[in-house]
Amino acid sequence: MKVDEQLKQSIDELQRTWHEQIPITRYMQLEICHRHDDVFAISAPLEPNINVHQTMFAGSIYTVATLCGWGAVHLSMAKQKAVGSIVLADANIRYRKPVKGMPIAETMWQKLEVNWELLKSGNKVKINVAVNVIENNDIAAVFTGVYVVLPK
Amino acid sequence: MKVDEQLKQSIDELQRTWHEQIPITRYMQLEICHRHDDVFAISAPLEPNINVHQTMFAGSIYTVATLCGWGAVHLSMAKQKAVGSIVLADANIRYRKPVKGMPIAETMWQKLEVNWELLKSGNKVKINVAVNVIENNDIAAVFTGVYVVLPK
Repeated sequence: MKVDEQLKQSIDELQRTWHEQIPITRYMQLEICHRHDDVFAISAPLEPNINVHQTMFAGSIYTVATLCGWGAVHLSMAKQKAVGSIVLADANIRYRKPVKGMPIAETMWQKLEVNWELLKSGNKVKINVAVNVIENNDIAAVFTGVYVVLPK
Repeated sequence: MKVDEQLKQSIDELQRTWHEQIPITRYMQLEICHRHDDVFAISAPLEPNINVHQTMFAGSIYTVATLCGWGAVHLSMAKQKAVGSIVLADANIRYRKPVKGMPIAETMWQKLEVNWELLKSGNKVKINVAVNVIENNDIAAVFTGVYVVLPK
């Protein structure tokens, strides 16, 4: 199997896993929308994620960003054949603009700095992930998360 | 109308507003669960908010905390007859323990430090709110949010 096919398969599995095992992602209509070699991106429509101001609810924007970071770590692990449980330890989000449509959360998953050999030798690893939430070419929110991967 | 009745009415309205205008809160089964004079608290059950680890999804824990802070600002405004639009500008959350059941997010809403006279004279105000997410008497997550209230 070629690398690209493996990547596509990992992404398809990830989308299924989220919708099956994190039911709120199904309600939010969260979708992986970009399969570029370097950029991992996900999105969700406004309607199920709307708030009292008729813009996207802050909790939904955060969730889209969180899962973008989670997915980036997952893809990096799949590429390196590393196995473990991903948990979010700490996160910060800054909201810059209201989101009025369908935002895209994206991160450069190939640029993650992580030593997967540590995990393979039985240690947990910490990974900092930066995600931008973009709408109409503007950054609507900036998210940074510290993910921890525990050896299985 | 006595102050306690006004407070109860504000809380009932808030619950209705969330479920009607932020549909994801209905899906999450988010409920205001504590109407103490000082503490404002909300909760949500595990089932609609579950993740791949069979614990509560990080995005749902964040959302419960976010709305607890939002509700605290709303009640403070209602008490002071201040009118404005509440938005979340910035937030941080630290996850300390997995949530395995129904957590309670709580904050001391009467202790918020805010000059509502500024809002009444047409200025926006910033409010820092700290929220603890508690399960079985342990703090499972610590949230801090910076909310901005814009004059209407």
